[in-house]
Amino acid sequence: MRTKMEMMILQTQAEFCKALAEVDGGTFQVDRWDRKEGGGGISCVLQDSNIFEKAGVNVSVVFGQLSEEAAQQIRSRGKSLKRKDGKLPFCAMGVSSVIHPKNPHIPTIHFNYRYFEIEEADGSKLWWFGGGTDLTPTYLNKEDAVHFHKTLKDACDKHDRKLYPEFKKWCDNYFFIKHRGERRGVGGIFFDDLDSPTKEDVFDFVRSCAKAVVPCYIPIVKKHLNDSFTSEEKQWQQLRRGRYVEFNLVYDRGTKFGLATPGSRIESILMSLPLNARWEYMHEPPKGTKEAEMLQVLRNPKDWAQ
Amino acid sequence: MRTKMEMMILQTQAEFCKALAEVDGGTFQVDRWDRKEGGGGISCVLQDSNIFEKAGVNVSVVFGQLSEEAAQQIRSRGKSLKRKDGKLPFCAMGVSSVIHPKNPHIPTIHFNYRYFEIEEADGSKLWWFGGGTDLTPTYLNKEDAVHFHKTLKDACDKHDRKLYPEFKKWCDNYFFIKHRGERRGVGGIFFDDLDSPTKEDVFDFVRSCAKAVVPCYIPIVKKHLNDSFTSEEKQWQQLRRGRYVEFNLVYDRGTKFGLATPGSRIESILMSLPLNARWEYMHEPPKGTKEAEMLQVLRNPKDWAQ
Repeated sequence: MRTKMEMMILQTQAEFCKALAEVDGGTFQVDRWDRKEGGGGISCVLQDSNIFEKAGVNVSVVFGQLSEEAAQQIRSRGKSLKRKDGKLPFCAMGVSSVIHPKNPHIPTIHFNYRYFEIEEADGSKLWWFGGGTDLTPTYLNKEDAVHFHKTLKDACDKHDRKLYPEFKKWCDNYFFIKHRGERRGVGGIFFDDLDSPTKEDVFDFVRSCAKAVVPCYIPIVKKHLNDSFTSEEKQWQQLRRGRYVEFNLVYDRGTKFGLATPGSRIESILMSLPLNARWEYMHEPPKGTKEAEMLQVLRNPKDWAQ
Repeated sequence: MRTKMEMMILQTQAEFCKALAEVDGGTFQVDRWDRKEGGGGISCVLQDSNIFEKAGVNVSVVFGQLSEEAAQQIRSRGKSLKRKDGKLPFCAMGVSSVIHPKNPHIPTIHFNYRYFEIEEADGSKLWWFGGGTDLTPTYLNKEDAVHFHKTLKDACDKHDRKLYPEFKKWCDNYFFIKHRGERRGVGGIFFDDLDSPTKEDVFDFVRSCAKAVVPCYIPIVKKHLNDSFTSEEKQWQQLRRGRYVEFNLVYDRGTKFGLATPGSRIESILMSLPLNARWEYMHEPPKGTKEAEMLQVLRNPKDWAQ
């Protein structure tokens, strides 16, 4: 499975970078890196380019011993882990991407698909898949939200019609900025600890999700490429980017796991942060504005794929 | 003590706001707020003004029952707390301030002085003071760093000459951005859990520290008020502000405690975040530049008050 998954994440990275570069006209900076403790990765970043303010697509395969801190991030999800001589061999691999466009009418997308293996003291192996794709618009465009969710639903439905409703809800719950009482965006799908029915079945499902990234996002980018925008709209985008930073640094499990894993590559983990972000004291958009409409949806998630 | 401390923090807020408004020429927005669960505060904010991009000076007095999450933030500091019927009455008060100037040659200052009381199951009261003042320049100015640290040292030395060296070191350790391997700034003083020799002694010491805020910072602001700067220098400031956000959202105890306390006022807690911040992938200033000089000091803290 390790090899199959590794091939899949590399292919996903290549396809998505190709599609983004075609739209943007720029060239990704490609960095290969090694992790002293085991493994490494490839980070592809397009920064301050034509269409994208910051586009990062990262693949990593890391293995070695799980730190106590990183193990806690897992235990908090209800897994109890038996160490051998204090050691806990693990292998984690995945593809992860965050795209922040310049134009506030093109939404930010994030996706991440990953596979995890842990060897316990008695030699038994735990494994699971996790992942998701979610959209964070600055302004609400209902057609975009519907297209995005329907594309994801189609990818899920091929495997089991129960998956999309469950993972859509999971996404709304996961990307919740608790202290603000709002979601990060209009959602998508999110799942973790997926280990049934079989390893092959879960992999096939994850591959379908990863294949859906280009068709669920690129048409939206192309549609809004030439939308005009005002400096006020740009400023609202910067405030929303501030919220994005809040979620990623305060709540996101992947970021926390990365920051807590010794030898992890900080630049690749924090490439998810936008080029620019803004915080204004007591900012609340006036009722009836497009900004207030966006907030309304972030506070009360909707069912877009019906 | 509650009343004495409350008077002191209100006076500190008033004096600092007055000094900042005099320099800036702008007027602070003053917001009083109540906390449903008990207590409230006054937030004073000057945003996008003449000299200051964002200046926040906040006073709060909150009481009620400590949430399990908030109690954990305290237990992680080695205090074990005995609950009565699952409840843990507490009172926390303090003055807290972060000032982000526009000009990259004027440093950011942060200070916070606070008093905490907890009543345990057996009726015994735990109490302690905490606090500190630290400076975060965008560019290193040695004279500023020396003036800042000497003013703090003088305030400490009046009480006990052992205090400054200990709290200077504590500050360097506390404001450490672990995943970057660098400090947030050039330090200052920091202490927590201070409960000896007597409540009066600690209060007198804390008051001296609070009185030192104006003389340690305002002269530096006035000195650099009219310094010219380039757009490159402004950009470096924005990148440093990104690091400031990373520290506050990932590590700062006060922010974590605030986000974990039900009914706390998010806008007052997050007023510490700058108006604008920036993240660039793989940014590393070339050797021999002023930017590299700053980083060098953040990676290897110096003794400024000798």
